Amino acid sequence: MNTTAPRINRCFKLAARPVGLPKRSDWHYEQHPVAEPAEGQILVQVSHISLDPAMRGWMNEGKSYIEPVAIGDVMRAGAAGHVIASRHPRFAVGDAVVGVFGVQEYALSDGKGVNKVDTQLVPLPVYIGTLGMPGMTAYFGLLDVGQAREGDTVVISGAAGAVGSVAGQIAKLKGCRVVGIAGGADKCRYLVDELGFDAAIDYKADDLRKALRQHCPKGIDVYFDNVGGEILDQCLAQLTRGARVVICGAISQYNNTTAVKGPSNYLSLLVNRASMTGMVVFDYAPRYGEAMREMAGWMAAGKLKSREYIVNGLDTFPEALLKLFAGENTGKLVLQVAD
Amino acid sequence: MNTTAPRINRCFKLAARPVGLPKRSDWHYEQHPVAEPAEGQILVQVSHISLDPAMRGWMNEGKSYIEPVAIGDVMRAGAAGHVIASRHPRFAVGDAVVGVFGVQEYALSDGKGVNKVDTQLVPLPVYIGTLGMPGMTAYFGLLDVGQAREGDTVVISGAAGAVGSVAGQIAKLKGCRVVGIAGGADKCRYLVDELGFDAAIDYKADDLRKALRQHCPKGIDVYFDNVGGEILDQCLAQLTRGARVVICGAISQYNNTTAVKGPSNYLSLLVNRASMTGMVVFDYAPRYGEAMREMAGWMAAGKLKSREYIVNGLDTFPEALLKLFAGENTGKLVLQVAD
Repeated sequence: MNTTAPRINRCFKLAARPVGLPKRSDWHYEQHPVAEPAEGQILVQVSHISLDPAMRGWMNEGKSYIEPVAIGDVMRAGAAGHVIASRHPRFAVGDAVVGVFGVQEYALSDGKGVNKVDTQLVPLPVYIGTLGMPGMTAYFGLLDVGQAREGDTVVISGAAGAVGSVAGQIAKLKGCRVVGIAGGADKCRYLVDELGFDAAIDYKADDLRKALRQHCPKGIDVYFDNVGGEILDQCLAQLTRGARVVICGAISQYNNTTAVKGPSNYLSLLVNRASMTGMVVFDYAPRYGEAMREMAGWMAAGKLKSREYIVNGLDTFPEALLKLFAGENTGKLVLQVAD
Repeated sequence: MNTTAPRINRCFKLAARPVGLPKRSDWHYEQHPVAEPAEGQILVQVSHISLDPAMRGWMNEGKSYIEPVAIGDVMRAGAAGHVIASRHPRFAVGDAVVGVFGVQEYALSDGKGVNKVDTQLVPLPVYIGTLGMPGMTAYFGLLDVGQAREGDTVVISGAAGAVGSVAGQIAKLKGCRVVGIAGGADKCRYLVDELGFDAAIDYKADDLRKALRQHCPKGIDVYFDNVGGEILDQCLAQLTRGARVVICGAISQYNNTTAVKGPSNYLSLLVNRASMTGMVVFDYAPRYGEAMREMAGWMAAGKLKSREYIVNGLDTFPEALLKLFAGENTGKLVLQVAD
């Protein structure tokens, strides 16, 4: 690389708090020369940006599990890339790294929350997917919050997405009966044929209530919810006694312009002495290593599959993000911005 | 008593499944001669019938934690009375007993689920209130499901009712900050002045959101929900991280003719890594003794107060039951049918 010509960083900043689905005008697309790292900093060339449903929540004002992205700030995003300049003792030029680098092509970082990864083991994008935040969410949500055990019937919504597809595979590996809910026949085939789910329900085509009864004749022991809304309600109606509902997300509600739809069937929790528990993956940071080791082992043995849905070009970010809410991606949605 | 003249039992049977609030026409009022107990049976003269919000649920068709009352059956109810004839080795004439005797004046029983109680210790109605099902619900709901601990801020809805008033007092005894939600100034005064709650909110007069913020400046660690609806939603919005929501009942929703209002703010569970767990008191039957001992000790020491709201006469049952849903009772609603 020619380090004498100034590098240009392109980035997306939050311009306005969206109402409903984020529009182009909610973003500022900017270009700036890239600064050199100061003492204790690294400069990362980002290659893959993680696009996650949670990002929609970070764009809202108000108290949540994390500070909202401020108007005028580079949009927050997990990402992967390589160190191209370092004045930090822990990092060297050429290191492959993951961190919260934001929606941009170059990131300066003090190294906090940045981890080196081994691209000999698995390709770089896997570290922001199956072995990244979505994978950690699936692992701890299913096993720790949901307490899924051998013989349990586990139902997963958003099952073809980054979190759901991993959660379902882990549930199978742990000896559960696994039923995925996804939108469209292709996704459903993928779940059963490629990932080994016991059954898949196409919520766009099937009668959800009937299909749940058919595929979960003993009821649902663990419901891993990524979507909220009507699907949450239907699953609540089929809980077994002592069932666990994991509230991981509610993608059907994130772009509401009216109130969130609360689960009308929540009294099924009472009837069935069941629980509904929310989770935020960051709480499990001290235990990521444990999950990474087990999951990397499964991947090496071919028992855990990872699929990325790659979109190219930083400038496509506003439209690429919307694919999540339109349900266009199967597997982890990744915005590739460099080779 | 003259045992030669036939005794007449008066009872209420379920005539129809109510739509909304139960009407007179949903009941059959009948009179029949009382049969003598067969071998292994006792005859109980009922004196106090427990009127509970849960009874509304038992009148509905469909799967629940207990079989619905069948059309034509005597309405199910907990009750207390005295054995007046016995062909059962465990019971003698004169024994004070509690059991599920139904809405009637005389009950034949095989003794299953019938317990002898000591009326020297506390008056008989207390055994269907503070030391009965409502008290057990309060004890295990608060301490076992809700995991209330010293220093926690505990909010209780339906706080002047049979369950709520006991739950709040136990929370105080365990060193919690306790805020009750009830309807009307009299109930609120009762909670604070007589039961020692730290604060009470009159949901009919106060701005609930503001009042919760004022009285729970650190947020809600345990929310014990007896009412559902808007109050549940407002409390969800004030949870602390790791908070526990106990779903004990939802009296605001039991007479709905439209769908139950699901809690729109349920995603607060996610943000706060909180849980919402349903309970049914019957599950704790093996541990009732443990709770009874501790609670009887508190009562003897004057630390736990019991209040009954007595309505007289079996024939008033249909109207008496409605007092629960109109919020007319403070303390345990009891239908007295004999001295």
